[in-house]
Amino acid sequence: MPRQVDVGRRRKEIYEAVFRLLVRGGVEQASLRKVADEAGLNIGAVRNYFDNHEELMTAAAREILDRISARLYADLAELEAGADPAEAARKMLCELLPLDETRRYETTVMFTLAERGRFTPAYAELSAEIHDGTRRLIHEILTRAGIADVEVETERLASLIDGLGFNGITHRPPPTPAFQLEVLDFHLDQLRRTNPDRRRH
Amino acid sequence: MPRQVDVGRRRKEIYEAVFRLLVRGGVEQASLRKVADEAGLNIGAVRNYFDNHEELMTAAAREILDRISARLYADLAELEAGADPAEAARKMLCELLPLDETRRYETTVMFTLAERGRFTPAYAELSAEIHDGTRRLIHEILTRAGIADVEVETERLASLIDGLGFNGITHRPPPTPAFQLEVLDFHLDQLRRTNPDRRRH
Repeated sequence: MPRQVDVGRRRKEIYEAVFRLLVRGGVEQASLRKVADEAGLNIGAVRNYFDNHEELMTAAAREILDRISARLYADLAELEAGADPAEAARKMLCELLPLDETRRYETTVMFTLAERGRFTPAYAELSAEIHDGTRRLIHEILTRAGIADVEVETERLASLIDGLGFNGITHRPPPTPAFQLEVLDFHLDQLRRTNPDRRRH
Repeated sequence: MPRQVDVGRRRKEIYEAVFRLLVRGGVEQASLRKVADEAGLNIGAVRNYFDNHEELMTAAAREILDRISARLYADLAELEAGADPAEAARKMLCELLPLDETRRYETTVMFTLAERGRFTPAYAELSAEIHDGTRRLIHEILTRAGIADVEVETERLASLIDGLGFNGITHRPPPTPAFQLEVLDFHLDQLRRTNPDRRRH
């Protein structure tokens, strides 16, 4: 009788191998064979779950998206349980910045896929989902906060987060988490200052 | 007697082939052989100028940097010749956004190299030069405009430009030039509003 394999755990091991290879060497380093080597599996075990490279990459990116979404839902639940709205909003935005090792990995995977999405339709689709999801979230946060000019403010804050994230993973030495937070907090503070109605309530 | 080749023109033909391939398929599509094919040259002609792929990529990226710098110096000259400072500053920032086909190509080459710079030291060096150069320029613009909190404002505006640029080349359909300009102008307008000293002069 063949040894029982925990499918969920095996897939997660494969994803972790993908993430490490993407961070070390980009998409071309994450072939099915190299991923199998990195995970200490034979290639047949990887092919059991993923037919080809593109399928593996999109599944790995979706795993990252699910992890970020789970944190955002937890933040939303805190908010609905009565957390300070400004603090909850800030926490949600911080989920999207490369402020620690986990989020650096996540941001790297997201940007790598977005860059490849320029010429790989499956990645472009996923990349659009991330782009639109981020903007929906920020739009919701700014609307709840009563910010004026919410359409342009949404794109401004989303692009700021994207720029900080991109530099956070590409620049050497990477900007410190403290500096990334300083820029974010400065922006949020300016948003409050230029929306005086909110201060009066 | 061999036919005389215009070295400068030949190099430019090779760069244009590199740019087209980078935009169509990323760095791996721009091998010396594929670049030679794209430029309608034999590979020996390309090897005449570039020993390897990395050398060709860095030379092509430097060509882009030179083109952007030339435009920025022209803007600075206009400024020194008495152009409206706010208008000149806006024009310089627009040189960095993917607002037309030329700037879309340039932005794509820059971001592609920055992404690869995560694991290719030669690209990381060039990428740092772009990163630092952009920030020096913006720091100078904001200092001349008398903007307070200039360090954090510099990173805020530079990251905003980076985020708009990255989305401008990765998102489908790409954000319209009008929308990119709306976000930039909104930001510049907010900067003026939150720096009231400047308005009084």
